[in-house]
Amino acid sequence: MRCKTNVNPNFIVLKRDMSKAYDRASDESNGVLKKLDRARKVRSSTSRRMAPRIVTARASAEKLKDPDQLIDSVETFIFDCDGVIWKGDKLIDGVPEPLICFGLRVRGYFCYQRLNKITKTEEIFASSFTAAAYLKSTDFPKDKKVYVVGGDGILKELELARIQYLGGLGDSEKKIELKPGYMMEHDENVGAVVVGFDRYFDYYKIQYATLCIRENPSCLFIATNRDAVTHLTDAQEWAGGGSMVGAISGSTQREPLVVGKPSAFMMNYLANKYV
Amino acid sequence: MRCKTNVNPNFIVLKRDMSKAYDRASDESNGVLKKLDRARKVRSSTSRRMAPRIVTARASAEKLKDPDQLIDSVETFIFDCDGVIWKGDKLIDGVPEPLICFGLRVRGYFCYQRLNKITKTEEIFASSFTAAAYLKSTDFPKDKKVYVVGGDGILKELELARIQYLGGLGDSEKKIELKPGYMMEHDENVGAVVVGFDRYFDYYKIQYATLCIRENPSCLFIATNRDAVTHLTDAQEWAGGGSMVGAISGSTQREPLVVGKPSAFMMNYLANKYV
Repeated sequence: MRCKTNVNPNFIVLKRDMSKAYDRASDESNGVLKKLDRARKVRSSTSRRMAPRIVTARASAEKLKDPDQLIDSVETFIFDCDGVIWKGDKLIDGVPEPLICFGLRVRGYFCYQRLNKITKTEEIFASSFTAAAYLKSTDFPKDKKVYVVGGDGILKELELARIQYLGGLGDSEKKIELKPGYMMEHDENVGAVVVGFDRYFDYYKIQYATLCIRENPSCLFIATNRDAVTHLTDAQEWAGGGSMVGAISGSTQREPLVVGKPSAFMMNYLANKYV
Repeated sequence: MRCKTNVNPNFIVLKRDMSKAYDRASDESNGVLKKLDRARKVRSSTSRRMAPRIVTARASAEKLKDPDQLIDSVETFIFDCDGVIWKGDKLIDGVPEPLICFGLRVRGYFCYQRLNKITKTEEIFASSFTAAAYLKSTDFPKDKKVYVVGGDGILKELELARIQYLGGLGDSEKKIELKPGYMMEHDENVGAVVVGFDRYFDYYKIQYATLCIRENPSCLFIATNRDAVTHLTDAQEWAGGGSMVGAISGSTQREPLVVGKPSAFMMNYLANKYV
């Protein structure tokens, strides 16, 4: 892993016993845990030979009577950040700053200044990371390309994974030109379409992605997430990546493989890495 | 019903025994019927007191051995046009022109010249018509408005039904402006969002429609169709209205009420009108 600037949407991995901030964090954790409707908690196995036991928070969590008991029994916590710890560029009211510091201090980095100035951490996993990680895990052919509906985060991750790509924000100004007999050309070497949140989403991108998925043999349809909402700003909830995925699902009649939260792929990746 | 200029996507209603063109059409119908994968056929009841029997064509129709037998036993045929009789602005190869003439001659009108010059017929029902017809059937409140994702066809039908609306192509140039604390305002008097095919579809429209459906109490979510493909041109298949509907379904986590093809509402409307 390496520096990441994309803070939205993503996970923080918070590992117990790895920072002096632990005591402060646990003292204040009760207030935070109420908010963790979407959090996932990874519990260590008693033996490294056994698969880690993954415990998922209930959708509607009651206030903990004995937070220490939970914290003592769980080695690694994974927090969804967007909408849980922050919204847009602001901390959610009531989330204690030490928890954030704790999440970012582990593994030797202390990068927390303000949330919109995070520039370096090994502990934040953007959903966009998982698309590249998944394609790498499948030995995605070197001569194939990925068409991206989404932001720069996905493109950067693909670049780091040395996977060829096209689309992304570079396609945001392109328009279709309707005249008799007109057809949109598409690259027949696209072997996967990766769809994430894209605020420049439009019909050009829908059609290009649809052509690749429908007409290129064995073309994958991968979603980084299907979130109904995202938090572009803290003033309201904004339509999330689920709308981009829903559009392309509607025109291709295909369901995507979701590799970001809350998919098994991301959970297993994190569990294997940290537990 | 009245003049319609929108020819895509839509239905032709073709009624037996109402035109001299019948003989010519039946002679050539065998070749056409092979193509009617998506056609719907409405059979008259033996008594007006009974509900009409609606027979749906099989998804994969075999060549008819005795087309006259089918034609004799069915009073009214309803054809899907886009992708069945024409694609974009061209007739599908093999569809006999007399059938088109026949469809348009019934009820006293002969308007067929070329498909892209149809200007007057009582026999073509655009999906956009059904949205206004449905809202009228529900006594949509006079003080409520409709937010439209779609083309001018929907707006014109709403205007004729004297239903207030906003959105449509008028929203095609609008952009969101992201800055801390920014929120998109929306009209709290929107009581229904109608979604059809829209080639100017973008994130602004997704967010506006989502806000109305999610935040306005009892706001309806109506789709004119969920077609995976449409035929903007005859050169290729284009992502259809299903992509716009899928996007808004993805961000609202709501399923729409589909009032256009192949919904029961449209079938029942046509059956009541013609059978």
